[in-house]
Amino acid sequence: MNTQTSTHLFAKRVENVPQSFIREILKVAGRPGIVSFAGGLPNPKFFPVKELEECAGKVLKEHGMQALQYASTEGYFPLREYLCKRYYTRFGLNITPEQILITNGSQQALDLVSKLFIEPGDKLVLERPSYLGALQCFSVFQPNFKEVDLEDDGPNIGQLEAALKKYDVKLFYSIPNFQNPTGISYSKEKRRQLAQTMGNSDAILIEDDPYGEINFSGKNLPPVYSFIPEQTILLGSFSKIVAPGLRLGWMVAEPEIIRKATVMKQASDLHSNNLTQYILHEFISKYNLDEHIARIRSQYKFQSEVMVDCLKTCFSPSVKFTLPQGGMFTWLTLPAGITARQLLQESLKENIIFVPGDCFYASNPNTQTLRLNFSNVEEGAMRKAMKKLGEILSGLVDMR
Amino acid sequence: MNTQTSTHLFAKRVENVPQSFIREILKVAGRPGIVSFAGGLPNPKFFPVKELEECAGKVLKEHGMQALQYASTEGYFPLREYLCKRYYTRFGLNITPEQILITNGSQQALDLVSKLFIEPGDKLVLERPSYLGALQCFSVFQPNFKEVDLEDDGPNIGQLEAALKKYDVKLFYSIPNFQNPTGISYSKEKRRQLAQTMGNSDAILIEDDPYGEINFSGKNLPPVYSFIPEQTILLGSFSKIVAPGLRLGWMVAEPEIIRKATVMKQASDLHSNNLTQYILHEFISKYNLDEHIARIRSQYKFQSEVMVDCLKTCFSPSVKFTLPQGGMFTWLTLPAGITARQLLQESLKENIIFVPGDCFYASNPNTQTLRLNFSNVEEGAMRKAMKKLGEILSGLVDMR
Repeated sequence: MNTQTSTHLFAKRVENVPQSFIREILKVAGRPGIVSFAGGLPNPKFFPVKELEECAGKVLKEHGMQALQYASTEGYFPLREYLCKRYYTRFGLNITPEQILITNGSQQALDLVSKLFIEPGDKLVLERPSYLGALQCFSVFQPNFKEVDLEDDGPNIGQLEAALKKYDVKLFYSIPNFQNPTGISYSKEKRRQLAQTMGNSDAILIEDDPYGEINFSGKNLPPVYSFIPEQTILLGSFSKIVAPGLRLGWMVAEPEIIRKATVMKQASDLHSNNLTQYILHEFISKYNLDEHIARIRSQYKFQSEVMVDCLKTCFSPSVKFTLPQGGMFTWLTLPAGITARQLLQESLKENIIFVPGDCFYASNPNTQTLRLNFSNVEEGAMRKAMKKLGEILSGLVDMR
Repeated sequence: MNTQTSTHLFAKRVENVPQSFIREILKVAGRPGIVSFAGGLPNPKFFPVKELEECAGKVLKEHGMQALQYASTEGYFPLREYLCKRYYTRFGLNITPEQILITNGSQQALDLVSKLFIEPGDKLVLERPSYLGALQCFSVFQPNFKEVDLEDDGPNIGQLEAALKKYDVKLFYSIPNFQNPTGISYSKEKRRQLAQTMGNSDAILIEDDPYGEINFSGKNLPPVYSFIPEQTILLGSFSKIVAPGLRLGWMVAEPEIIRKATVMKQASDLHSNNLTQYILHEFISKYNLDEHIARIRSQYKFQSEVMVDCLKTCFSPSVKFTLPQGGMFTWLTLPAGITARQLLQESLKENIIFVPGDCFYASNPNTQTLRLNFSNVEEGAMRKAMKKLGEILSGLVDMR
């Protein structure tokens, strides 16, 4: 036997998973001189490097043996307690540690939710467009995707109602705050409507919230979880508010769901990184996380304003774009007849990259759309590259 | 709707996964005064705490931003290069970094292998008994388990040949070095026979090797991978040779399998912990890992000898046990008419725990068997507890 025969043993699900085009683009991003609006990377300037160095030293000095040993699947208990307190402070929510499972970033929570709920062919509703990493993760479990349009203030509730009525939907996957890829947030009214609509159904809401704390106004809208906690699985992450290299996120749900998710997690990788859980807990105990987040917020707000300014001044008025109130992305719709991949082909020659929007659709992609990341490009480079991108686009418009 | 309705949405696979009885026992292990032969924990005395503290400081000082940022799914390149060099030094194997994927401990490699290959109903052959964590992980993907007896020198080749002939087997999961739970190692001859038998089939060998470096003689037998590399997926782990809290293991396979496993890993959790990969790489670059392992080896060898001595002197000769040449476990078979759960019920009253062997079988468990861990109990406590355990057993033998 040989490798050829070995790969034919792959399960069907292997073909099912879309390869990440972003991954391919990001390989280019490492080249010198490239200006990348492509990634979803937080700005490393705001990683609390010195503080984490100090915390790592303290943890290893005082709790080295425990932090380096095998640990509980649920996660480090004081970290779970901290999250409960934070939800109480931010939203008045009463969540107990039994309702929290620590995961390897919130991406792993998507894998665990999939393991818990998705049988091949199960109906799963997505926003249109949606987070590519979720699309990839869910695809492994072979669901039947249904999509509802994402409007300026949240999902089209009529379409969602229709989908819930027509199909035996198991899950609705949503990102209510500063969505990836569009930067759109649900209005308070849409959150209420969504809760009501979900409440009339049997389906579970997956509320993914990695960006909620990066709200430029500093004001939080309540998570949909707060309206229908027993029907929601709420996901969070330290990647955007502390650092992604720690690989720490979490899942909030009813205790029975957390218990079963814990069994799935144990089977998947025993437990999350124990050393970085200790270090992170030391960091949030000793330092003021809110002040740290306020600094990130203020810088990202500034960078988003620079980007919007460039879009207004250097781009044809026929280009539509979202006005993000938080997070890391804005979303463009190009004039008819021009695709984002055409634009990328030209912009690559000028060392400017971004992600074409077609990757973010489960079906019938809108090829005129694209995602721009503003968190990881400094003002000077951003202004210069956005001006160039506007010129390239004008050239394409003229050539139509 | 309410939680009752929500849990009815669970996928069938959720019921399929055996709960870990070990987990329940380990909850007791934390009680003061308990002597635990139950865990699979390495001895924390040998965690290089001071060295890792120094390495963490250096990494964060010199590469903080990179170590805390998102990173490649494949894993930190210098760490993959290091593993290639180590396989070359230990076994003369030519493995390239493209053949290595870094995982969250080798447990995650089992999840990724399952995602790559197992469709519900696919035939998967296990040693009898086998590692409970693998049983759990595979069960999520609903295979049809077939078992072959594990003899003193490795799997029963006749039974394996018969299974490969009779069924359309996809995977054989094996732990050739100091197996969990039995402590048994495959002889060189059995390794050759296994390679030949697998080579005559279309199935893939999963060679799980977390304990290979903890060989009391200091001598390595070649991995089965070295005979049939194109047909083997070889798993390794830093948990037993450095520290499990770092959550770092790896998978070695043909590049095409690694590419697809990387897509599955990206969907599962984007990438392994970047900070601990940097810290670990600093540690193995600066310190002599072989000397470190030699110290662990020598201590575990001593502890295994103490345990065997106790088994010889304090236990009825009707108790059979394996003579481990490495790793962390020995395996007992009790006299007819006495089950390990009976013994545990009594020993718990004396604050002594271990894992009944029935957990380690996919079917028809041998209830007379049990697993004893010797790596994590010091000599004095071990002698005392083993003497007591021998007495409890004698009491049960007398009462039959």
